[in-house]
Amino acid sequence: MNQPDLTQGDFTLPGEAGHEKLTLRLAKKWGADTIRDSDGTQLSPELIESGYAIYSTVCLVRSIQPWAREHHDQLQQNFLMSFPVVATKATAVVTLLAGYYTEQFTVNWQDSPKQWWQVFDRTTGLEVPKARWSVDPKKGTVAIAGTVPGHKYTVNFLALRLWEEISMYNHLTNNWGDREHLAAVDPMQPAVQKRLLAYLEQWLRDHPDTTVVRFTSLFYNFSWFWGADHAKLRDVYSDWADYAMAVSPRALKLFEKRYGYKLTSEDFVNGGLYNSTHNAPSRRYCDYMEFVHDFVIDFGRRCIELVHAHAKLAYIFYDDHWIGVEPNSPRFAEFGFDGLIKCVFNAFEVRLCSHSKGVKTHELRLHPYLFPTGLKGEPTFKEGGNPTLDAKNFWIDARRGLVRAPIDRIGLGGYLSLVEPFPDFQDTIEGLLKEFRLLKSFHAGDKPWTAPLKVAVLTAWGDLRAWTCSGHFTHGVELYAVIEALAGLPLDVQFISFDDLVAEGVPAGVKVIINAGRAGSAWSGGHFWSNPEVEAILTQFVHKGGGLVGIAEPSALAQPGQLFKLAQVWARPRLRRAPGQRKYKFTKPAGAVAGHFITADVPAQAAADLGKEVDGIYVSGPETQVLAERDGSPRLATHAFGKGRAVYLSGFKFAHENTRLLHRALFWAAAKEDKWSVWNTTNIRTEATYFPNAGKLVVINNAGTAEATLVTLGDGRTKKRVQLPAHGIKILDV
Amino acid sequence: MNQPDLTQGDFTLPGEAGHEKLTLRLAKKWGADTIRDSDGTQLSPELIESGYAIYSTVCLVRSIQPWAREHHDQLQQNFLMSFPVVATKATAVVTLLAGYYTEQFTVNWQDSPKQWWQVFDRTTGLEVPKARWSVDPKKGTVAIAGTVPGHKYTVNFLALRLWEEISMYNHLTNNWGDREHLAAVDPMQPAVQKRLLAYLEQWLRDHPDTTVVRFTSLFYNFSWFWGADHAKLRDVYSDWADYAMAVSPRALKLFEKRYGYKLTSEDFVNGGLYNSTHNAPSRRYCDYMEFVHDFVIDFGRRCIELVHAHAKLAYIFYDDHWIGVEPNSPRFAEFGFDGLIKCVFNAFEVRLCSHSKGVKTHELRLHPYLFPTGLKGEPTFKEGGNPTLDAKNFWIDARRGLVRAPIDRIGLGGYLSLVEPFPDFQDTIEGLLKEFRLLKSFHAGDKPWTAPLKVAVLTAWGDLRAWTCSGHFTHGVELYAVIEALAGLPLDVQFISFDDLVAEGVPAGVKVIINAGRAGSAWSGGHFWSNPEVEAILTQFVHKGGGLVGIAEPSALAQPGQLFKLAQVWARPRLRRAPGQRKYKFTKPAGAVAGHFITADVPAQAAADLGKEVDGIYVSGPETQVLAERDGSPRLATHAFGKGRAVYLSGFKFAHENTRLLHRALFWAAAKEDKWSVWNTTNIRTEATYFPNAGKLVVINNAGTAEATLVTLGDGRTKKRVQLPAHGIKILDV
Repeated sequence: MNQPDLTQGDFTLPGEAGHEKLTLRLAKKWGADTIRDSDGTQLSPELIESGYAIYSTVCLVRSIQPWAREHHDQLQQNFLMSFPVVATKATAVVTLLAGYYTEQFTVNWQDSPKQWWQVFDRTTGLEVPKARWSVDPKKGTVAIAGTVPGHKYTVNFLALRLWEEISMYNHLTNNWGDREHLAAVDPMQPAVQKRLLAYLEQWLRDHPDTTVVRFTSLFYNFSWFWGADHAKLRDVYSDWADYAMAVSPRALKLFEKRYGYKLTSEDFVNGGLYNSTHNAPSRRYCDYMEFVHDFVIDFGRRCIELVHAHAKLAYIFYDDHWIGVEPNSPRFAEFGFDGLIKCVFNAFEVRLCSHSKGVKTHELRLHPYLFPTGLKGEPTFKEGGNPTLDAKNFWIDARRGLVRAPIDRIGLGGYLSLVEPFPDFQDTIEGLLKEFRLLKSFHAGDKPWTAPLKVAVLTAWGDLRAWTCSGHFTHGVELYAVIEALAGLPLDVQFISFDDLVAEGVPAGVKVIINAGRAGSAWSGGHFWSNPEVEAILTQFVHKGGGLVGIAEPSALAQPGQLFKLAQVWARPRLRRAPGQRKYKFTKPAGAVAGHFITADVPAQAAADLGKEVDGIYVSGPETQVLAERDGSPRLATHAFGKGRAVYLSGFKFAHENTRLLHRALFWAAAKEDKWSVWNTTNIRTEATYFPNAGKLVVINNAGTAEATLVTLGDGRTKKRVQLPAHGIKILDV
Repeated sequence: MNQPDLTQGDFTLPGEAGHEKLTLRLAKKWGADTIRDSDGTQLSPELIESGYAIYSTVCLVRSIQPWAREHHDQLQQNFLMSFPVVATKATAVVTLLAGYYTEQFTVNWQDSPKQWWQVFDRTTGLEVPKARWSVDPKKGTVAIAGTVPGHKYTVNFLALRLWEEISMYNHLTNNWGDREHLAAVDPMQPAVQKRLLAYLEQWLRDHPDTTVVRFTSLFYNFSWFWGADHAKLRDVYSDWADYAMAVSPRALKLFEKRYGYKLTSEDFVNGGLYNSTHNAPSRRYCDYMEFVHDFVIDFGRRCIELVHAHAKLAYIFYDDHWIGVEPNSPRFAEFGFDGLIKCVFNAFEVRLCSHSKGVKTHELRLHPYLFPTGLKGEPTFKEGGNPTLDAKNFWIDARRGLVRAPIDRIGLGGYLSLVEPFPDFQDTIEGLLKEFRLLKSFHAGDKPWTAPLKVAVLTAWGDLRAWTCSGHFTHGVELYAVIEALAGLPLDVQFISFDDLVAEGVPAGVKVIINAGRAGSAWSGGHFWSNPEVEAILTQFVHKGGGLVGIAEPSALAQPGQLFKLAQVWARPRLRRAPGQRKYKFTKPAGAVAGHFITADVPAQAAADLGKEVDGIYVSGPETQVLAERDGSPRLATHAFGKGRAVYLSGFKFAHENTRLLHRALFWAAAKEDKWSVWNTTNIRTEATYFPNAGKLVVINNAGTAEATLVTLGDGRTKKRVQLPAHGIKILDV
């Protein structure tokens, strides 16, 4: 293997006009090959002509102002549910936008309300016949006749969006004053398509030095409905992957023609839940996603072809207006994008970026962004901030993913001038860029070793939402913590849906299946568990020797007498609310946790903190071994079922201890305890990755303290002692 | 008012043969008018002829041995669900009694299995056609053909009971060795009826000195299914009010004739949940209860008439074989019982006993029982025990109910000889008997003052389960704690069902309704909330000025987007599992609790401990005032709705602080804050009861420490200072 050049390449630097000297100095120090503009910064001719490749951002849907604001019928829209109104008499009046932010929304009166809207009696759950309500555009209300006093009513109506959400967010967050409010046009309208293509053509002509056109992103933003009271309820509803903001009468008509059936407002509103990614989706909504994906590919490809016609590359930013883009979709390659850029906080996001097929270049945007304050308002590049430490901490989180999966490039964003007073920070970035280039060189022509147990994560979404739940890490949602743990483990992980499972069974080679989440969620599976085939397939899988790891409320479906469909596999017959049924008195562990292969690395004096745990769990009999419990409810339990094994955890939180617990649980469930030590570390704050072709063993320290560890080599016996500085990395030739 | 004799009468003493001197001495010291036998004790001729009234216990259904054991077809029976079996092939074999205690149960093969049993695929929820299964009486199994591998199967079958449960419990608990195992006959069998009446006739002749026949109780015990492994799962299922053990083919045939439809095994088995009182009942099960009640009244009345024919009184013990007796039923008077005896630990049980209409005499059995150990195995009348303190503590719990509701007699049970070495205990009983007689004298011709707000507790059961949930106090079930709090408060409380509410609306005069419990439970209401009329009636009730106090998961019914049907009333739109919907950021209280009328007596530095609380609650807007919260979830919140008021508590645990919190919440919800102080105490460990006719103010100390309090008199202004010793009581003339 050739020694790679660790000082140069694969790095995108945010340039800043007026700071040309600094830009060029840091471009050299950090080995940049590319300079980019950012939201709020521009590149000067000096920078553009400095010989570096140039990334330029473009957001098409908000590019044509003021035309957009002058053509309301061309704006993007969505269904909103009014806040509920309780009837006190035989008529009730609903003010449609009460509670919503009226700079974001205006009621769409132009498309026939009687055709598209629905009024519901939410007490009975029934739709109010259209003849019983009438609209008053002047007052912005709907009057409902024949209401039942004491019942509550809501109106599903179409709202046009006057202010594009990212523009709105930045404007309001950064006090942009009277800067233009950008509106987003709907590219499903033929007139809009024509204008956008013309705009892009002109833009490409105007940017001769741009080498990479970075789309931010394509057409439809994730769903984000703002409330009137920004202090108390700014976001009435938001979801990073809901298609609610990609709806219009035109789209619904096209959908009906294509799919042969009609969607209603309630398919999108769903009683006010909308179609949050966290909930198990309906078949109808999945059809609509497919419909939008098809359109976005179709029109997106035309834009990308234009970029290519100008001999430029097209990259897509994996955020913001990414609805319908779906980088995990098997059709993603049809766009013809050259690169995918993902902004990352965590290892799972590194894996998410790497997982996408259909682009040549996978690029990460690292944190911290070069802003005075971080996302939560904490100081970064200003007094009180410690950007060097921030960079190191973000880096060790992301690095766990980088050692496991190939990434082609990394970059930064923001105001470069802010880093000038922080020479330490400049050195730290230089150092981690070298680490990145080294890891990239290991991935070239090699694949990190994985343990002899394939793992499948079973969710309602399957691979379409592999390595993500819905946006950045949300604490309290167990699956985020699980995928963050998995993202750095030496395991072959795949994501399967219930549809996959029913159609094809458990994928060949899979030894352990994980099902993790709360009842009703997409992650646990919700209504998909009502299909008895799912239960039969998984029960047989374990019975014949497979492993099953359930976390929180796996296989949950409300049924008389039990919550878990796979209770027999975990030997937990039921959960709560069965007061007459008595609990089997299991043997409690003598200490905080019982001694077991799974708990071997858990400090004896304390049980792992599994976050917000499910309690009130019963076990069914003596076959269950309870390794940890609280108030008589098992927190960690194992069960042999047929020839297979099942593990139950009552919760999961991302922490070194729990990552190790999960790692061991997977080995135990797969009955591979004898293979445990191979390429594993003894110190849970450290992890090891072996590149077999290169013969390199990468040992990383995931902690901010110096750590020592033993690593067992491939023979399962030889141990190497490794000493690591805080945040450190060591490469061993083996 | 005549000064009552506080030293004499209304007390039932357990006599003990061989301890005649002690019996007669204590009978005198304690002012007994009656001597009784107990389980395990007998009365000698000397005691029987001592001039005291004599109670004698009789349990008819286990009275005819060995005939019962020799006539299996006359034994009581019930449906059992086999433990689930997971099919691994196209056939599966279920061993019916596997996991059950075979000294209690034997399979009933004599009544056609194909007619009465059902086999279920619990994976699909569907019944397996009868043609696909066959029984093997020799092996005790059912073989199922055409099973789907991975599905789980259960068999609902009829089991005869070989050993009556109370006999079994006492036998096994007290190691009765080879003493006879008593079996319970089924009085719905004509042959049994004949024998029982003959037995009773003879028994009455054999007990000429008995003045009161105490039935223990009538025919059918509460449900209690024992497991094979007594150490780990002794009780597979038990419920104090389930009619599961009052079922037989004969009963089902009679039911069908009467009601015109057929019940199935699954109506009783209910997926293994049976018909726990804690779950909202089905209409079919309620019909069956009515059917059994009718039979028990019918045959019970014949037994009581026999007792009366012998010029004796008939009392019923409100426990054990009390199924179908239903002392809260409006038909209870039809039995013709003279007295009702309730064993009590708590104030709510005092109210339960007092609440029953249709008997002249309401008698309590106090704790501690005169046994060496208490119910949980703790020492009582032996080394390490402190029966005097036990008696005081039980007394202050029960006394809260005794000051509020009239009780005619009290008594003790057990081995009297055990109290001999405890003179303190003897004095304490003497003292509390004086308290009891004094309180009884106040109730005579008087009714304690109640605040000007009628309270209704809304549950699935209504008045049939007034002042009880299902047996003695179970911690963790919110409604037990609520009724225990209410049992001692100066409030007029009634219990209403959803059927009552729909049929008659909110009862006249009711100012506040309480709904307290977990989703799906009978206490919260379960499926009854799916009737939109319930929501409409209650919403209007509050809107027009009523009060609503919701605890834990009131009005809970799983619906898209929200859990609480009355969310609008409490201004809590939803509970958990709606991840895309954002939380309204309510104003957090500055301290542990916000200052408010409701929290005025809660120590400022600490929020009340409400037990196991519901979390993940959202509020909908600024109208909700959150008085206490944890992790952003409200624990105590108020909301004005229309002209009415609603209070939400996320849990409830019985404690002085919480009783006061509930008391104040009810006043606030009824908008009666200005009336709060009347006859109330300032010290939450004390309570006051005013008897207006007698002009007596009773102040009790519910604590084991000396307490001082101010009591406000009826003018709402004048305050009296009262000093109370530990466990003490003071009577003031006002």
